[in-house]
Amino acid sequence: MKLAPYLERRRAEVDRALEALLPPPEGPAALLAEAMRYAVFSGGKRLRPVLALAACEAFGGRDEDVLEPAAALELVHTYSLVHDDLPAMDDDDLRRGRPTAHKAYGEAEAILAGDALLTLAFEILATRPVGSPAAARRGEAVALVARRAGHAGMVGGQLADLEAERRPPAAETLEWIHRHKTGALLSASVELGALHAGATPEDRAAMARFGDALGLAFQIADDVLDRTASVEALGKTPGKDEKSGKATYPALLGVEASRREADRLCAVALSCIPKSVKEPSFLEALARYAVDRTH
Amino acid sequence: MKLAPYLERRRAEVDRALEALLPPPEGPAALLAEAMRYAVFSGGKRLRPVLALAACEAFGGRDEDVLEPAAALELVHTYSLVHDDLPAMDDDDLRRGRPTAHKAYGEAEAILAGDALLTLAFEILATRPVGSPAAARRGEAVALVARRAGHAGMVGGQLADLEAERRPPAAETLEWIHRHKTGALLSASVELGALHAGATPEDRAAMARFGDALGLAFQIADDVLDRTASVEALGKTPGKDEKSGKATYPALLGVEASRREADRLCAVALSCIPKSVKEPSFLEALARYAVDRTH
Repeated sequence: MKLAPYLERRRAEVDRALEALLPPPEGPAALLAEAMRYAVFSGGKRLRPVLALAACEAFGGRDEDVLEPAAALELVHTYSLVHDDLPAMDDDDLRRGRPTAHKAYGEAEAILAGDALLTLAFEILATRPVGSPAAARRGEAVALVARRAGHAGMVGGQLADLEAERRPPAAETLEWIHRHKTGALLSASVELGALHAGATPEDRAAMARFGDALGLAFQIADDVLDRTASVEALGKTPGKDEKSGKATYPALLGVEASRREADRLCAVALSCIPKSVKEPSFLEALARYAVDRTH
Repeated sequence: MKLAPYLERRRAEVDRALEALLPPPEGPAALLAEAMRYAVFSGGKRLRPVLALAACEAFGGRDEDVLEPAAALELVHTYSLVHDDLPAMDDDDLRRGRPTAHKAYGEAEAILAGDALLTLAFEILATRPVGSPAAARRGEAVALVARRAGHAGMVGGQLADLEAERRPPAAETLEWIHRHKTGALLSASVELGALHAGATPEDRAAMARFGDALGLAFQIADDVLDRTASVEALGKTPGKDEKSGKATYPALLGVEASRREADRLCAVALSCIPKSVKEPSFLEALARYAVDRTH
Protein backbone atom coordinates (compact mmCIF):
# COMPACT_ATOMS: atom_id res chain seq x y z
CA MET A 1 0.00 0.00 0.00
CA LYS A 2 1.04 3.59 -0.63
CA LEU A 3 1.29 5.59 2.60
CA ALA A 4 2.20 9.01 1.19
CA PRO A 5 -1.07 9.66 -0.71
CA TYR A 6 -3.06 8.31 2.24
CA LEU A 7 -1.28 10.69 4.62
CA GLU A 8 -1.72 13.58 2.22
CA ARG A 9 -5.46 12.94 1.78
CA ARG A 10 -5.99 12.57 5.53
CA ARG A 11 -3.99 15.68 6.28
CA ALA A 12 -6.13 17.74 3.90
CA GLU A 13 -9.33 16.40 5.54
CA VAL A 14 -8.03 17.25 9.01
CA ASP A 15 -6.96 20.74 7.91
CA ARG A 16 -10.43 21.42 6.50
CA ALA A 17 -11.99 20.32 9.79
CA LEU A 18 -9.56 22.50 11.78
CA GLU A 19 -10.33 25.48 9.54
CA ALA A 20 -14.04 25.10 10.29
CA LEU A 21 -13.56 24.50 14.03
CA LEU A 22 -11.13 27.32 14.84
CA PRO A 23 -12.66 30.72 15.64
CA PRO A 24 -12.50 33.46 12.99
CA PRO A 25 -10.03 36.26 13.78
CA GLU A 26 -12.56 38.99 14.58
CA GLY A 27 -13.90 40.94 17.58
CA PRO A 28 -12.00 42.22 20.63
CA ALA A 29 -10.04 38.96 20.94
CA ALA A 30 -9.18 38.70 17.23
CA LEU A 31 -5.48 38.48 18.02
CA LEU A 32 -6.11 35.36 20.09
CA ALA A 33 -7.81 33.60 17.19
CA GLU A 34 -4.95 34.71 14.93
CA ALA A 35 -2.33 33.28 17.27
CA MET A 36 -4.31 30.04 17.62
CA ARG A 37 -4.50 29.68 13.85
CA TYR A 38 -0.85 30.56 13.38
CA ALA A 39 0.16 27.79 15.77
CA VAL A 40 -2.20 25.21 14.26
CA PHE A 41 -1.51 25.89 10.58
CA SER A 42 2.22 25.43 10.61
CA GLY A 43 2.66 22.44 8.35
CA GLY A 44 2.33 19.68 10.92
CA LYS A 45 1.90 16.07 9.84
CA ARG A 46 -1.40 15.71 11.77
CA LEU A 47 -0.17 12.35 13.01
CA ARG A 48 -2.60 12.16 15.95
CA PRO A 49 -5.75 12.91 13.92
CA VAL A 50 -4.59 10.54 11.18
CA LEU A 51 -4.08 7.80 13.78
CA ALA A 52 -7.60 8.41 15.11
CA LEU A 53 -9.05 8.29 11.59
CA ALA A 54 -7.10 5.14 10.73
CA ALA A 55 -8.21 3.44 13.97
CA CYS A 56 -11.83 4.39 13.36
CA GLU A 57 -11.59 3.05 9.80
CA ALA A 58 -9.96 -0.16 11.02
CA PHE A 59 -13.01 -0.91 13.19
CA GLY A 60 -15.48 -0.15 10.43
CA GLY A 61 -16.34 3.41 11.50
CA ARG A 62 -16.98 6.26 9.07
CA ASP A 63 -14.65 9.27 8.79
CA GLU A 64 -17.38 11.64 9.93
CA ASP A 65 -17.71 9.67 13.19
CA VAL A 66 -14.30 10.83 14.34
CA LEU A 67 -13.04 13.65 12.10
CA GLU A 68 -13.88 16.50 14.48
CA PRO A 69 -12.73 14.72 17.67
CA ALA A 70 -9.58 13.80 15.74
CA ALA A 71 -9.02 17.48 14.90
CA ALA A 72 -9.39 18.24 18.63
CA LEU A 73 -6.38 15.98 19.26
CA GLU A 74 -4.32 18.22 17.00
CA LEU A 75 -5.38 21.22 19.09
CA VAL A 76 -4.18 19.44 22.23
CA HIS A 77 -0.90 18.59 20.52
CA THR A 78 -0.47 22.15 19.24
CA TYR A 79 -1.14 23.73 22.65
CA SER A 80 1.51 21.47 24.18
CA LEU A 81 4.05 22.56 21.55
CA VAL A 82 3.21 26.26 22.03
CA HIS A 83 3.75 26.03 25.78
CA ASP A 84 6.78 23.76 25.39
CA ASP A 85 8.49 26.31 23.13
CA LEU A 86 8.16 29.15 25.67
CA PRO A 87 11.32 30.78 27.07
CA ALA A 88 10.58 29.31 30.53
CA MET A 89 10.40 25.82 29.01
CA ASP A 90 12.47 24.70 25.97
CA ASP A 91 13.03 28.28 24.75
CA ASP A 92 12.76 27.45 21.04
CA ASP A 93 12.70 30.18 18.40
CA LEU A 94 11.88 27.90 15.48
CA ARG A 95 9.18 25.29 15.00
CA ARG A 96 8.71 23.57 11.63
CA GLY A 97 10.97 26.20 10.08
CA ARG A 98 8.93 29.22 11.26
CA PRO A 99 9.12 31.50 14.29
CA THR A 100 7.46 29.87 17.29
CA ALA A 101 4.15 31.35 18.50
CA HIS A 102 5.71 33.47 21.25
CA LYS A 103 8.29 34.81 18.78
CA ALA A 104 5.53 35.79 16.36
CA TYR A 105 2.88 37.02 18.85
CA GLY A 106 4.56 37.56 22.22
CA GLU A 107 4.83 35.39 25.30
CA ALA A 108 1.57 36.30 27.02
CA GLU A 109 -0.29 35.80 23.76
CA ALA A 110 1.31 32.38 23.26
CA ILE A 111 0.41 31.25 26.79
CA LEU A 112 -3.21 32.32 26.26
CA ALA A 113 -3.40 30.87 22.74
CA GLY A 114 -2.25 27.53 24.18
CA ASP A 115 -4.85 27.75 26.93
CA ALA A 116 -7.57 28.56 24.40
CA LEU A 117 -6.53 25.68 22.10
CA LEU A 118 -6.74 23.18 24.96
CA THR A 119 -10.13 24.51 26.06
CA LEU A 120 -11.48 24.46 22.50
CA ALA A 121 -10.33 20.85 22.15
CA PHE A 122 -12.54 19.81 25.07
CA GLU A 123 -15.46 21.84 23.77
CA ILE A 124 -15.19 19.96 20.47
CA LEU A 125 -14.78 16.55 22.12
CA ALA A 126 -17.89 17.24 24.24
CA THR A 127 -20.09 18.39 21.34
CA ARG A 128 -18.89 16.68 18.13
CA PRO A 129 -19.97 14.84 16.15
CA VAL A 130 -23.61 15.83 16.68
CA GLY A 131 -26.37 13.23 17.03
CA SER A 132 -26.45 9.75 18.51
CA PRO A 133 -24.84 7.25 18.93
CA ALA A 134 -21.94 9.74 19.20
CA ALA A 135 -23.68 11.57 22.08
CA ALA A 136 -23.21 8.59 24.40
CA ARG A 137 -19.52 8.41 23.48
CA ARG A 138 -18.61 12.08 23.76
CA GLY A 139 -18.35 12.19 27.54
CA GLU A 140 -16.03 9.20 27.41
CA ALA A 141 -14.03 10.89 24.67
CA VAL A 142 -13.43 13.92 26.89
CA ALA A 143 -12.45 11.73 29.82
CA LEU A 144 -10.02 9.57 27.86
CA VAL A 145 -8.26 12.53 26.27
CA ALA A 146 -8.15 14.48 29.57
CA ARG A 147 -6.63 11.49 31.40
CA ARG A 148 -3.90 11.05 28.78
CA ALA A 149 -3.24 14.77 28.33
CA GLY A 150 -3.14 15.81 32.02
CA HIS A 151 -1.03 15.32 35.13
CA ALA A 152 -1.08 11.52 34.83
CA GLY A 153 -0.18 11.70 31.13
CA MET A 154 1.36 14.28 28.82
CA VAL A 155 1.74 17.23 31.21
CA GLY A 156 3.19 14.93 33.89
CA GLY A 157 5.68 13.69 31.31
CA GLN A 158 6.66 17.23 30.35
CA LEU A 159 7.31 18.16 33.98
CA ALA A 160 9.40 15.04 34.58
CA ASP A 161 11.25 15.80 31.33
CA LEU A 162 12.14 19.27 32.63
CA GLU A 163 13.42 17.83 35.88
CA ALA A 164 15.49 15.31 33.94
CA GLU A 165 17.40 18.20 32.36
CA ARG A 166 18.58 19.21 35.80
CA ARG A 167 19.26 15.75 37.14
CA PRO A 168 19.98 12.91 34.67
CA PRO A 169 17.36 10.18 35.19
CA ALA A 170 17.71 6.40 35.25
CA ALA A 171 16.70 4.47 32.13
CA GLU A 172 13.38 3.49 33.65
CA THR A 173 12.50 7.11 34.49
CA LEU A 174 13.42 8.06 30.93
CA GLU A 175 11.02 5.43 29.63
CA TRP A 176 8.32 6.75 32.00
CA ILE A 177 8.89 10.26 30.63
CA HIS A 178 8.68 9.17 26.99
CA ARG A 179 5.60 7.04 27.60
CA HIS A 180 3.85 9.99 29.19
CA LYS A 181 5.17 12.98 27.27
CA THR A 182 4.52 11.51 23.83
CA GLY A 183 2.96 8.08 24.18
CA ALA A 184 -0.07 9.14 26.20
CA LEU A 185 -1.60 11.34 23.51
CA LEU A 186 -0.79 8.95 20.65
CA SER A 187 -2.43 6.22 22.67
CA ALA A 188 -5.47 8.45 23.26
CA SER A 189 -5.62 9.07 19.49
CA VAL A 190 -6.02 5.44 18.43
CA GLU A 191 -8.34 4.71 21.36
CA LEU A 192 -10.51 7.70 20.43
CA GLY A 193 -10.80 6.37 16.88
CA ALA A 194 -11.81 2.95 18.16
CA LEU A 195 -14.30 4.50 20.63
CA HIS A 196 -16.12 6.51 17.98
CA ALA A 197 -16.20 3.48 15.68
CA GLY A 198 -18.05 1.60 18.43
CA ALA A 199 -15.24 -0.90 19.15
CA THR A 200 -15.54 -3.16 22.21
CA PRO A 201 -13.78 -2.17 25.45
CA GLU A 202 -11.30 -5.03 24.88
CA ASP A 203 -10.45 -3.81 21.40
CA ARG A 204 -10.14 -0.24 22.68
CA ALA A 205 -7.72 -1.39 25.36
CA ALA A 206 -5.70 -3.30 22.75
CA MET A 207 -5.53 -0.18 20.60
CA ALA A 208 -4.38 1.85 23.62
CA ARG A 209 -1.49 -0.64 24.04
CA PHE A 210 -0.73 -0.26 20.32
CA GLY A 211 -0.57 3.50 20.85
CA ASP A 212 1.61 3.19 23.96
CA ALA A 213 4.26 1.17 22.15
CA LEU A 214 4.02 3.37 19.07
CA GLY A 215 4.36 6.52 21.15
CA LEU A 216 7.51 5.33 22.87
CA ALA A 217 8.98 4.28 19.52
CA PHE A 218 8.06 7.64 18.08
CA GLN A 219 9.72 9.64 20.85
CA ILE A 220 12.89 7.56 20.57
CA ALA A 221 12.82 8.24 16.83
CA ASP A 222 12.43 11.97 17.53
CA ASP A 223 15.43 11.96 19.85
CA VAL A 224 17.50 10.08 17.25
CA LEU A 225 16.49 12.64 14.61
CA ASP A 226 17.58 15.45 16.90
CA ARG A 227 21.05 13.89 16.76
CA THR A 228 21.22 13.00 13.09
CA ALA A 229 19.04 15.38 11.04
CA SER A 230 19.78 18.77 9.51
CA VAL A 231 17.90 21.96 10.41
CA GLU A 232 16.15 21.79 7.01
CA ALA A 233 14.97 18.23 7.49
CA LEU A 234 13.98 18.85 11.11
CA GLY A 235 12.36 22.28 10.70
CA LYS A 236 13.89 23.32 14.01
CA THR A 237 17.30 23.63 15.58
CA PRO A 238 18.84 20.14 15.84
CA GLY A 239 21.34 19.02 18.46
CA LYS A 240 19.59 20.95 21.23
CA ASP A 241 19.14 17.85 23.39
CA GLU A 242 22.79 16.95 23.17
CA LYS A 243 23.95 20.52 23.81
CA SER A 244 21.73 20.85 26.86
CA GLY A 245 23.01 17.52 28.19
CA LYS A 246 19.43 16.23 28.15
CA ALA A 247 18.86 12.57 28.92
CA THR A 248 17.62 10.83 25.78
CA TYR A 249 17.73 7.28 24.49
CA PRO A 250 20.61 8.13 22.11
CA ALA A 251 22.51 9.66 25.05
CA LEU A 252 21.83 6.59 27.19
CA LEU A 253 22.15 3.78 24.64
CA GLY A 254 23.75 5.35 21.59
CA VAL A 255 22.10 5.99 18.22
CA GLU A 256 22.23 2.44 16.86
CA ALA A 257 20.82 0.73 19.95
CA SER A 258 18.10 3.41 20.08
CA ARG A 259 17.12 2.61 16.48
CA ARG A 260 16.93 -1.08 17.37
CA GLU A 261 14.75 -0.32 20.40
CA ALA A 262 12.40 1.76 18.22
CA ASP A 263 12.19 -1.15 15.76
CA ARG A 264 11.41 -3.58 18.58
CA LEU A 265 8.66 -1.32 19.93
CA CYS A 266 7.20 -0.98 16.46
CA ALA A 267 6.93 -4.79 16.33
CA VAL A 268 5.25 -4.78 19.75
CA ALA A 269 2.75 -2.20 18.47
CA LEU A 270 1.94 -4.30 15.40
CA SER A 271 1.35 -7.37 17.59
CA CYS A 272 -1.24 -5.41 19.61
CA ILE A 273 -3.61 -4.84 16.67
CA PRO A 274 -6.64 -7.03 17.50
CA LYS A 275 -7.82 -9.78 15.15
CA SER A 276 -11.19 -8.06 14.79
CA VAL A 277 -9.49 -5.41 12.65
CA LYS A 278 -10.33 -6.43 9.07
CA GLU A 279 -8.01 -3.99 7.31
CA PRO A 280 -4.93 -3.31 9.44
CA SER A 281 -2.68 -2.14 6.63
CA PHE A 282 -2.95 1.61 7.30
CA LEU A 283 -2.37 1.19 11.04
CA GLU A 284 0.63 -1.02 10.25
CA ALA A 285 1.99 1.45 7.74
CA LEU A 286 1.56 4.35 10.16
CA ALA A 287 3.44 2.46 12.87
CA ARG A 288 6.31 1.69 10.47
CA TYR A 289 6.32 5.26 9.16
CA ALA A 290 6.97 6.72 12.61
CA VAL A 291 10.01 4.52 13.05
CA ASP A 292 11.35 4.50 9.49
CA ARG A 293 12.06 8.22 9.72
CA THR A 294 15.05 7.38 11.90
CA HIS A 295 16.82 5.31 9.24
CA MET B 1 -29.98 35.10 56.70
CA LYS B 2 -26.38 34.70 57.83
CA LEU B 3 -24.01 34.49 54.88
CA ALA B 4 -20.70 34.02 56.71
CA PRO B 5 -21.46 30.57 58.23
CA TYR B 6 -23.00 29.44 54.92
CA LEU B 7 -19.86 30.49 53.01
CA GLU B 8 -17.64 28.85 55.59
CA ARG B 9 -19.54 25.55 55.48
CA ARG B 10 -19.58 25.54 51.68
CA ARG B 11 -15.90 26.38 51.48
CA ALA B 12 -15.03 23.45 53.74
CA GLU B 13 -17.14 21.08 51.58
CA VAL B 14 -15.45 22.31 48.42
CA ASP B 15 -11.99 21.99 49.96
CA ARG B 16 -12.69 18.38 50.96
CA ALA B 17 -13.82 17.61 47.40
CA LEU B 18 -10.71 19.29 45.96
CA GLU B 19 -8.49 17.34 48.34
CA ALA B 20 -9.99 14.07 47.07
CA LEU B 21 -9.90 15.08 43.40
CA LEU B 22 -6.34 16.43 43.18
CA PRO B 23 -3.58 13.88 42.49
CA PRO B 24 -1.34 12.83 45.39
CA PRO B 25 2.21 14.23 45.20
CA GLU B 26 4.01 11.00 44.32
CA GLY B 27 5.77 9.33 41.37
CA PRO B 28 8.00 10.93 38.72
CA ALA B 29 5.66 13.94 38.40
CA ALA B 30 5.22 14.49 42.14
CA LEU B 31 6.38 18.09 41.83
CA LEU B 32 3.54 18.79 39.41
CA ALA B 33 0.93 17.54 41.88
CA GLU B 34 2.64 19.61 44.60
CA ALA B 35 2.50 22.78 42.52
CA MET B 36 -1.15 22.09 41.60
CA ARG B 37 -2.05 21.68 45.28
CA TYR B 38 -0.05 24.75 46.29
CA ALA B 39 -1.98 26.88 43.82
CA VAL B 40 -5.38 25.44 44.75
CA PHE B 41 -5.01 25.50 48.53
CA SER B 42 -4.15 29.14 48.96
CA GLY B 43 -7.11 30.40 50.98
CA GLY B 44 -9.45 31.29 48.13
CA LYS B 45 -13.11 32.07 48.79
CA ARG B 46 -14.29 29.28 46.44
CA LEU B 47 -16.84 31.73 45.05
CA ARG B 48 -17.43 29.81 41.82
CA PRO B 49 -18.06 26.41 43.46
CA VAL B 50 -20.24 28.07 46.10
CA LEU B 51 -22.30 29.75 43.36
CA ALA B 52 -22.73 26.37 41.64
CA LEU B 53 -23.79 24.73 44.91
CA ALA B 54 -26.19 27.57 45.71
CA ALA B 55 -27.71 27.44 42.22
CA CYS B 56 -28.13 23.66 42.43
CA GLU B 57 -29.77 24.03 45.85
CA ALA B 58 -32.05 26.80 44.56
CA PHE B 59 -33.48 24.41 41.95
CA GLY B 60 -33.98 21.59 44.43
CA GLY B 61 -30.81 19.63 43.56
CA ARG B 62 -28.69 17.82 46.15
CA ASP B 63 -25.15 18.92 47.02
CA GLU B 64 -23.70 15.64 45.75
CA ASP B 65 -25.22 16.33 42.31
CA VAL B 66 -22.82 19.20 41.72
CA LEU B 67 -20.08 19.19 44.38
CA GLU B 68 -17.39 17.61 42.17
CA PRO B 69 -18.24 19.62 39.02
CA ALA B 70 -18.28 22.70 41.25
CA ALA B 71 -14.80 21.85 42.49
CA ALA B 72 -13.71 21.59 38.84
CA LEU B 73 -14.72 25.24 38.39
CA GLU B 74 -12.24 26.17 41.11
CA LEU B 75 -9.53 24.32 39.19
CA VAL B 76 -10.36 26.36 36.07
CA HIS B 77 -10.28 29.56 38.12
CA THR B 78 -6.99 28.58 39.78
CA TYR B 79 -5.29 27.72 36.47
CA SER B 80 -6.30 31.14 35.09
CA LEU B 81 -4.77 32.87 38.14
CA VAL B 82 -1.55 30.84 37.90
CA HIS B 83 -1.09 31.77 34.24
CA ASP B 84 -2.24 35.35 34.82
CA ASP B 85 0.42 35.86 37.52
CA LEU B 86 3.29 34.77 35.23
CA PRO B 87 6.06 37.27 34.42
CA ALA B 88 4.90 37.43 30.77
CA MET B 89 1.38 38.34 31.92
CA ASP B 90 0.64 40.38 35.10
CA ASP B 91 3.99 39.54 36.72
CA ASP B 92 2.65 39.24 40.25
CA ASP B 93 4.81 37.99 43.12
CA LEU B 94 2.03 37.75 45.67
CA ARG B 95 -1.38 36.10 45.56
CA ARG B 96 -3.57 35.96 48.64
CA GLY B 97 -0.57 37.00 50.72
CA ARG B 98 1.69 34.14 49.58
CA PRO B 99 4.29 33.80 46.81
CA THR B 100 2.60 33.09 43.48
CA ALA B 101 3.05 29.61 41.99
CA HIS B 102 5.90 30.59 39.67
CA LYS B 103 7.69 32.29 42.57
CA ALA B 104 7.36 29.15 44.69
CA TYR B 105 7.95 26.48 42.00
CA GLY B 106 9.45 28.15 38.94
CA GLU B 107 7.95 29.45 35.74
CA ALA B 108 7.90 26.25 33.70
CA GLU B 109 6.39 24.39 36.63
CA ALA B 110 3.68 27.03 37.00
CA ILE B 111 2.79 26.91 33.30
CA LEU B 112 2.50 23.12 33.43
CA ALA B 113 0.61 23.13 36.75
CA GLY B 114 -1.91 25.50 35.17
CA ASP B 115 -2.22 23.25 32.13
CA ALA B 116 -2.72 20.20 34.34
CA LEU B 117 -5.36 21.95 36.48
CA LEU B 118 -7.38 22.90 33.39
CA THR B 119 -7.14 19.39 31.99
CA LEU B 120 -8.11 17.80 35.31
CA ALA B 121 -11.13 20.11 35.48
CA PHE B 122 -12.45 18.70 32.21
CA GLU B 123 -11.73 15.14 33.29
CA ILE B 124 -13.82 15.74 36.42
CA LEU B 125 -16.65 17.47 34.53
CA ALA B 126 -16.77 14.52 32.08
CA THR B 127 -16.82 11.80 34.76
CA ARG B 128 -18.41 13.22 37.93
CA PRO B 129 -20.77 12.68 39.56
CA VAL B 130 -21.00 8.98 38.64
CA GLY B 131 -24.31 7.36 37.72
CA SER B 132 -27.38 8.64 35.91
CA PRO B 133 -29.10 11.07 35.48
CA ALA B 134 -25.79 12.91 35.82
CA ALA B 135 -24.31 10.92 32.92
CA ALA B 136 -26.61 12.60 30.42
CA ARG B 137 -25.64 16.03 31.79
CA ARG B 138 -21.88 15.62 32.00
CA GLY B 139 -21.19 16.18 28.30
CA GLU B 140 -23.22 19.37 28.45
CA ALA B 141 -21.34 20.39 31.59
CA VAL B 142 -18.01 20.09 29.75
CA ALA B 143 -19.35 22.05 26.79
CA LEU B 144 -20.78 24.90 28.84
CA VAL B 145 -17.64 25.35 30.91
CA ALA B 146 -15.36 25.07 27.85
CA ARG B 147 -17.38 27.70 25.97
CA ARG B 148 -17.22 30.16 28.87
CA ALA B 149 -13.59 29.42 29.75
CA GLY B 150 -12.11 29.50 26.24
CA HIS B 151 -11.44 31.91 23.39
CA ALA B 152 -15.03 33.18 23.33
CA GLY B 153 -15.04 33.62 27.11
CA MET B 154 -12.44 33.93 29.84
CA VAL B 155 -9.25 33.48 27.80
CA GLY B 156 -10.54 35.88 25.14
CA GLY B 157 -11.21 38.40 27.91
CA GLN B 158 -7.71 37.98 29.29
CA LEU B 159 -6.14 38.60 25.90
CA ALA B 160 -8.26 41.69 25.28
CA ASP B 161 -7.35 42.86 28.80
CA LEU B 162 -3.65 42.57 27.95
CA GLU B 163 -4.13 44.58 24.78
CA ALA B 164 -6.06 47.22 26.73
CA GLU B 165 -2.92 47.84 28.81
CA ARG B 166 -1.11 48.89 25.66
CA ARG B 167 -3.94 50.87 24.11
CA PRO B 168 -6.67 52.30 26.38
CA PRO B 169 -10.02 50.88 25.27
CA ALA B 170 -13.42 52.53 24.92
CA ALA B 171 -15.97 51.98 27.69
CA GLU B 172 -17.80 49.35 25.66
CA THR B 173 -14.62 47.35 25.04
CA LEU B 174 -13.89 47.55 28.76
CA GLU B 175 -17.33 46.10 29.49
CA TRP B 176 -16.69 43.34 26.92
CA ILE B 177 -13.41 42.53 28.67
CA HIS B 178 -14.98 42.39 32.13
CA ARG B 179 -17.92 40.31 30.93
CA HIS B 180 -15.55 37.80 29.41
CA LYS B 181 -12.57 37.79 31.75
CA THR B 182 -14.62 37.38 34.93
CA GLY B 183 -18.29 37.17 34.05
CA ALA B 184 -18.05 34.15 31.76
CA LEU B 185 -16.86 31.71 34.42
CA LEU B 186 -19.21 33.04 37.11
CA SER B 187 -22.03 32.65 34.64
CA ALA B 188 -20.91 29.10 33.89
CA SER B 189 -20.88 28.38 37.64
CA VAL B 190 -24.52 29.18 38.29
CA GLU B 191 -25.59 27.55 35.02
CA LEU B 192 -23.66 24.40 35.93
CA GLY B 193 -25.48 24.26 39.27
CA ALA B 194 -28.84 24.64 37.55
CA LEU B 195 -27.91 22.01 34.94
CA HIS B 196 -27.00 19.35 37.51
CA ALA B 197 -30.16 20.14 39.49
CA GLY B 198 -32.17 19.31 36.36
CA ALA B 199 -33.44 22.87 35.78
CA THR B 200 -35.26 23.68 32.51
CA PRO B 201 -33.31 25.26 29.63
CA GLU B 202 -35.21 28.53 30.26
CA ASP B 203 -34.24 28.57 33.92
CA ARG B 204 -30.65 27.72 33.03
CA ALA B 205 -30.56 30.65 30.59
CA ALA B 206 -31.98 32.96 33.27
CA MET B 207 -29.29 31.82 35.69
CA ALA B 208 -26.64 32.45 33.05
CA ARG B 209 -27.90 36.05 32.79
CA PHE B 210 -27.80 36.29 36.60
CA GLY B 211 -24.17 35.17 36.43
CA ASP B 212 -23.32 37.60 33.63
CA ALA B 213 -24.54 40.62 35.58
CA LEU B 214 -22.99 39.35 38.80
CA GLY B 215 -19.67 38.76 37.07
CA LEU B 216 -19.49 42.27 35.67
CA ALA B 217 -20.42 43.70 39.09
CA PHE B 218 -17.79 41.52 40.71
CA GLN B 219 -15.01 42.64 38.38
CA ILE B 220 -15.90 46.29 38.88
CA ALA B 221 -15.80 45.66 42.63
CA ASP B 222 -12.37 44.04 42.23
CA ASP B 223 -11.06 47.05 40.32
CA VAL B 224 -12.45 49.40 42.98
CA LEU B 225 -10.75 47.33 45.70
CA ASP B 226 -7.47 47.57 43.82
CA ARG B 227 -7.76 51.34 44.29
CA THR B 228 -9.02 51.47 47.84
CA ALA B 229 -7.80 48.43 49.79
CA SER B 230 -4.59 47.77 51.72
CA VAL B 231 -2.12 44.99 50.88
CA GLU B 232 -3.32 43.10 54.00
CA ALA B 233 -6.98 43.31 53.02
CA LEU B 234 -6.25 42.48 49.40
CA GLY B 235 -3.66 39.73 49.91
CA LYS B 236 -1.73 41.10 46.94
CA THR B 237 -0.09 44.32 45.85
CA PRO B 238 -2.78 47.01 45.49
CA GLY B 239 -2.66 49.98 43.15
CA LYS B 240 -1.10 47.92 40.34
CA ASP B 241 -3.84 48.78 37.87
CA GLU B 242 -3.47 52.50 38.49
CA LYS B 243 0.33 52.36 38.32
CA SER B 244 0.28 50.46 35.04
CA GLY B 245 -2.24 52.93 33.61
CA LYS B 246 -4.64 50.04 33.05
CA ALA B 247 -8.12 50.84 31.87
CA THR B 248 -10.58 50.03 34.64
CA TYR B 249 -14.03 51.26 35.61
CA PRO B 250 -12.59 53.43 38.41
CA ALA B 251 -10.13 54.94 35.91
CA LEU B 252 -12.92 55.57 33.41
CA LEU B 253 -15.79 56.61 35.72
CA GLY B 254 -14.19 57.28 39.09
CA VAL B 255 -14.58 55.20 42.24
CA GLU B 256 -18.04 56.44 43.29
CA ALA B 257 -19.69 56.01 39.90
CA SER B 258 -18.09 52.55 39.67
CA ARG B 259 -19.65 51.58 43.00
CA ARG B 260 -23.05 52.76 41.77
CA GLU B 261 -22.64 50.75 38.55
CA ALA B 262 -21.79 47.66 40.59
CA ASP B 263 -24.90 48.22 42.71
CA ARG B 264 -27.04 48.61 39.61
CA LEU B 265 -25.69 45.38 38.11
CA CYS B 266 -26.32 43.59 41.38
CA ALA B 267 -29.98 44.65 41.12
CA VAL B 268 -30.07 43.40 37.53
CA ALA B 269 -28.69 40.06 38.71
CA LEU B 270 -31.33 39.74 41.43
CA SER B 271 -34.09 40.46 38.90
CA CYS B 272 -32.88 37.55 36.76
CA ILE B 273 -33.53 34.87 39.39
CA PRO B 274 -36.48 32.89 37.98
CA LYS B 275 -39.74 32.55 39.89
CA SER B 276 -39.34 28.77 39.95
CA VAL B 277 -36.57 29.23 42.53
CA LYS B 278 -38.26 28.46 45.85
CA GLU B 279 -35.45 29.62 48.13
CA PRO B 280 -33.50 32.46 46.50
CA SER B 281 -32.01 33.88 49.68
CA PHE B 282 -28.52 32.36 49.32
CA LEU B 283 -28.24 33.40 45.69
CA GLU B 284 -29.39 36.90 46.64
CA ALA B 285 -26.96 37.08 49.53
CA LEU B 286 -24.08 35.89 47.35
CA ALA B 287 -24.86 38.55 44.74
CA ARG B 288 -24.90 41.27 47.43
CA TYR B 289 -21.75 39.91 49.04
CA ALA B 290 -19.72 40.33 45.85
CA VAL B 291 -20.69 43.97 45.63
CA ASP B 292 -20.73 44.90 49.34
CA ARG B 293 -16.99 44.28 49.53
CA THR B 294 -16.49 47.56 47.69
CA HIS B 295 -18.17 49.69 50.36
